[in-house]
Amino acid sequence: MEKIVLQGLLYDFYGELLTEHQRQVYEDVVLGDLSISEIAQERGISRQGVHDLVKRCNRILEEYEEKLHLVAKFVSIRDKVGRIHDLVESRDTEAQGQILSQVAELSSQILEEL
Amino acid sequence: MEKIVLQGLLYDFYGELLTEHQRQVYEDVVLGDLSISEIAQERGISRQGVHDLVKRCNRILEEYEEKLHLVAKFVSIRDKVGRIHDLVESRDTEAQGQILSQVAELSSQILEEL
Repeated sequence: MEKIVLQGLLYDFYGELLTEHQRQVYEDVVLGDLSISEIAQERGISRQGVHDLVKRCNRILEEYEEKLHLVAKFVSIRDKVGRIHDLVESRDTEAQGQILSQVAELSSQILEEL
Repeated sequence: MEKIVLQGLLYDFYGELLTEHQRQVYEDVVLGDLSISEIAQERGISRQGVHDLVKRCNRILEEYEEKLHLVAKFVSIRDKVGRIHDLVESRDTEAQGQILSQVAELSSQILEEL
């Protein structure tokens, strides 16, 4: 997975565990609506301070994932459900029995992970 | 959901965010291999201390869920995947087309949640 997508997922999962201040600055930087200089000025911190805060937030989010592994779990489930979805959407009427067997296998795997 | 099942899920998801000491006492109490008196003696704390620690752990775990809602998300997904599994396992060959439509709908719903 691309690092930037992973970082987004980590924020989506654990962002609420950051402080309100961290979240605000982090979102300003990552969403890119303001320049680093503008953010620094608005928050009354240095440009280096903004940079350090983002780095620290990323580290905190990574540490939560190292402990809980919930993003990895979700990604694995999402992939399998995606495969189920593709299988049943293929509408290959000849192979319905086979599709159902594959869906049964995938859904069993997901239930074991949950 | 029964409170005791929910508490187990909360511990399963967020338990790693408790301290090592909290986890040890919590597991001793919840798994019930030792009496409260034995746990208190072994850990060098009072029986009331054991009780307070469990209560505090439950509160901490609930607070993580209040912020992150990841247990609720998982339970919802698990229910839907369980329904997919039951549908495809029913092996009702007459209704295969209908089963596939329902699986498509359920898998879409899950992907929207993920």
